[in-house]
Amino acid sequence: MNGAESLVKTLLACGVDTCFANPGTSEMHFVAALDRIPGMRCVLGLFEGVVTGAADGYARMAGKPAATLLHCGPGLANGLANLHNAYRANTPMVNIVGDQSTDHRPLDAPLTADTEGWARPVSVWTRTVTQAASVGAAVAAAVQAARAAPGGVASLILPSDVCWNPGGEVAAPLAPIPVPRVSPTAVQQATRVLRSGEPTLILLAGSALGEAALSHAHRIAAATGARLMSTTFNARVARGRGRFHVDRLPYVGKVARDTLAGIRHLVLVGTAAPATFFAYPGQSSRPYPEDAVVHVLARPEEDLGEALAHLCDALDAPPVQVPAAPAQSQEVGRGALSSESVAQVLGALLPEQAIVVDEAATFGRAFYPGTRHAAPHDWLNLTGGAIGSGLPLALGAAVASPGRRVVALQADGSGMYTLQALWSMARERLDVTIVVLANRKYAVLLHELANVGATPGKTALDMLDLGNPDLDWVRLANGMGVEAARADDVEGFADLFAMANRRSGPFLIELVV
Amino acid sequence: MNGAESLVKTLLACGVDTCFANPGTSEMHFVAALDRIPGMRCVLGLFEGVVTGAADGYARMAGKPAATLLHCGPGLANGLANLHNAYRANTPMVNIVGDQSTDHRPLDAPLTADTEGWARPVSVWTRTVTQAASVGAAVAAAVQAARAAPGGVASLILPSDVCWNPGGEVAAPLAPIPVPRVSPTAVQQATRVLRSGEPTLILLAGSALGEAALSHAHRIAAATGARLMSTTFNARVARGRGRFHVDRLPYVGKVARDTLAGIRHLVLVGTAAPATFFAYPGQSSRPYPEDAVVHVLARPEEDLGEALAHLCDALDAPPVQVPAAPAQSQEVGRGALSSESVAQVLGALLPEQAIVVDEAATFGRAFYPGTRHAAPHDWLNLTGGAIGSGLPLALGAAVASPGRRVVALQADGSGMYTLQALWSMARERLDVTIVVLANRKYAVLLHELANVGATPGKTALDMLDLGNPDLDWVRLANGMGVEAARADDVEGFADLFAMANRRSGPFLIELVV
Repeated sequence: MNGAESLVKTLLACGVDTCFANPGTSEMHFVAALDRIPGMRCVLGLFEGVVTGAADGYARMAGKPAATLLHCGPGLANGLANLHNAYRANTPMVNIVGDQSTDHRPLDAPLTADTEGWARPVSVWTRTVTQAASVGAAVAAAVQAARAAPGGVASLILPSDVCWNPGGEVAAPLAPIPVPRVSPTAVQQATRVLRSGEPTLILLAGSALGEAALSHAHRIAAATGARLMSTTFNARVARGRGRFHVDRLPYVGKVARDTLAGIRHLVLVGTAAPATFFAYPGQSSRPYPEDAVVHVLARPEEDLGEALAHLCDALDAPPVQVPAAPAQSQEVGRGALSSESVAQVLGALLPEQAIVVDEAATFGRAFYPGTRHAAPHDWLNLTGGAIGSGLPLALGAAVASPGRRVVALQADGSGMYTLQALWSMARERLDVTIVVLANRKYAVLLHELANVGATPGKTALDMLDLGNPDLDWVRLANGMGVEAARADDVEGFADLFAMANRRSGPFLIELVV
Repeated sequence: MNGAESLVKTLLACGVDTCFANPGTSEMHFVAALDRIPGMRCVLGLFEGVVTGAADGYARMAGKPAATLLHCGPGLANGLANLHNAYRANTPMVNIVGDQSTDHRPLDAPLTADTEGWARPVSVWTRTVTQAASVGAAVAAAVQAARAAPGGVASLILPSDVCWNPGGEVAAPLAPIPVPRVSPTAVQQATRVLRSGEPTLILLAGSALGEAALSHAHRIAAATGARLMSTTFNARVARGRGRFHVDRLPYVGKVARDTLAGIRHLVLVGTAAPATFFAYPGQSSRPYPEDAVVHVLARPEEDLGEALAHLCDALDAPPVQVPAAPAQSQEVGRGALSSESVAQVLGALLPEQAIVVDEAATFGRAFYPGTRHAAPHDWLNLTGGAIGSGLPLALGAAVASPGRRVVALQADGSGMYTLQALWSMARERLDVTIVVLANRKYAVLLHELANVGATPGKTALDMLDLGNPDLDWVRLANGMGVEAARADDVEGFADLFAMANRRSGPFLIELVV
């Protein structure tokens, strides 16, 4: 057995049976091994940013890692932005990066690069294997590290000779790394704070946004008067009709500071103390009052649901019911497309158990509040601010979730970063409805330019405007085998959205907004 | 004056007047400064791989650096693969990477990443500036480092506060770093080797492939019987009718070893001793005989033209004439598209002073030999093996070279990596003819899979085949505002190619091969 075969067999033994791939020469022994050993579903992406973003979306829904297959340092580099997003999402993932053979690397052939150096900042675990016999054990360790709570990116770099050499050994899965126990002291401290009656915000993140954890959080809030909020950008939130809701911490620093004015305590559940997304001259980088005291109920790697349950017990908080939703109109509006009118359509027509992938950026401001009472769904956000995650996330979520509709709400500027994902959706015949919000500008940057006190002149506009020429998303989608249509009013959108969600396979709707 | 204004003014003072950009929030003060200070041509790319590849193509033709404008670590990361190619091409370039403000970075907001760590492996110079007063001096040092022979990528990381803070100071250009003198010992040693009469290969790279240097190399070869060859992948070669020609070192290791069999001496001019592109089990990583002796006439940072001129003098090599070219038929063939038939069309119809960007991969095997006697032109290659450089290089070369036609010979799989470059070509109305060679597979990898002794099964084919669904490059181009047409025979291609080259603005031809 060569190293590549031990790689495939150990991945399968560890429960990793899906591989998003863009292979190259140094990975051909792995590809050949995949042919010989059944059981791995391989999905080709035409760019590595698609590959890593899809593995992120897959793991958010499957709750277990996919593998990626990347080619040398530059192939990894192309995937780094979405690895950054996955790192910020605490997504479990196993990167397999093929590289120059051990003897070849010192010769500095053209494709040689600092693969390990590039991988390390986005990885919780990084290793370069140097012999075939070690491949299996390294794979098992990578999967273990990726799955260790709260989850993370493990990067395994395999010089081509360790794949082609004989002596490969399949490794058994390693025991999961135990989740750290919830600290009784932290629960006592949070209990004291919540009983004080002082204005308190409980900030939830990660697995604290699952259905059961949210229910505990709402018991605590109801019993103590504390406010609940989630972090701004979350890997996955269970929401919709019949589920407990939390608002998100506002993105804009000033709005967040206004919202949190008067808060005396922050209780953190699975997140660090929040910072604004960017800094601005003369403005605080913290969205909460300077004199607020920050308490940690549980760190990201702890069992957040258990911590909330213990806090419920300590507070003796009685059960609560999900408030009845207002009757949701199935009627949709008419007329011009606006964030609110599109949100109304989404709220009314979102399919049951849809998976919403949100990279809608500025135009999407009304979408999250507007879908609060929609059919039950999961909401996946861009987590690390590296745009271009939406379409790949949708691809991966759809691979992980047959039978559920994926709805990708996609800003046009961000969508152009990784539009190659559309082709993989077509090839895999995935049930994805893509809604491109074509405002034909980097709208967020026009706001930011105004924030710095500038009136945009021609040079600035040329860098922030995506018109001239207009992108034609219908042709772009068709060019990659995805059917598509355009709408420029609410009725047109509602008709297309309802139709697209009933279809089998992907469909793209370009909203000219 | 704030830091951003000193940045723009110092760049202009140092002769950097073109900026390929994809800005974000942390760069808004730079964008605002560009509005206030005239003189910088800004070209927007819809993905950072377009931005960095375009800056590479620009500098290869302009002979001076462009600036890039990139947004934080992930924006830089998206540009790394083409920075790797630029690093391998010794291309002068000044990366401006905006980043989190100095006080904000420790708060680890979502977009915070290891910007400097990612930049360093592809940069000859890297600096993070920490105060506004230092920005100007850092820019001047960056330009100096980028322009130091043989040229390199300088990466300047600017936290947003150093751009918005007052106290910026414009710096004067720094004196160029002197080019190291050619070593008389090295010239004497090469003279001895070449006079020995033993089989010798002179391997040329970098600026040794300019017109004057090639003429000296041919005088040496004619006087001594030495063979001449260039490295396989070159940043820029002056070639065509009326110019001296050199073959390239073959890409395939076995072919290269056969070609160099019997060589006793290698004389290196501007390159390290060659290695094969990849390693293969049981094969040498060196393309030359084990017992060949390697001599260095000049290192990449020396004046290669001067070294060859000194060697000419030492050998008393008489002038030589460019051999008369065979009469080049303006007739083109008929029938099926093959590498040879397409090469014949290119040879016959390439416009005078065309700039050819070659990322044609497997299907392009006949293009370089087939255009040897075409109208005089420059030939730009993918240098670092990180695919996705072709369309961005063409964009940048066209920005640098108004009045010259750029012909991009583009494999389909590689073209999909950075297809967003088409939009920038349309926006800037650049005279680029793009020929997409649509074989609808990663053909090079099918060869490589055969090399490892495997017959591709379904899993492998699914990862190496770009059909299902077929990409439609005409629609993809149209979707980004570029006119396009398809040809499936030689006559059709010749007609379209001649028409496209006479047009103003970009035109894409999809060859279904």
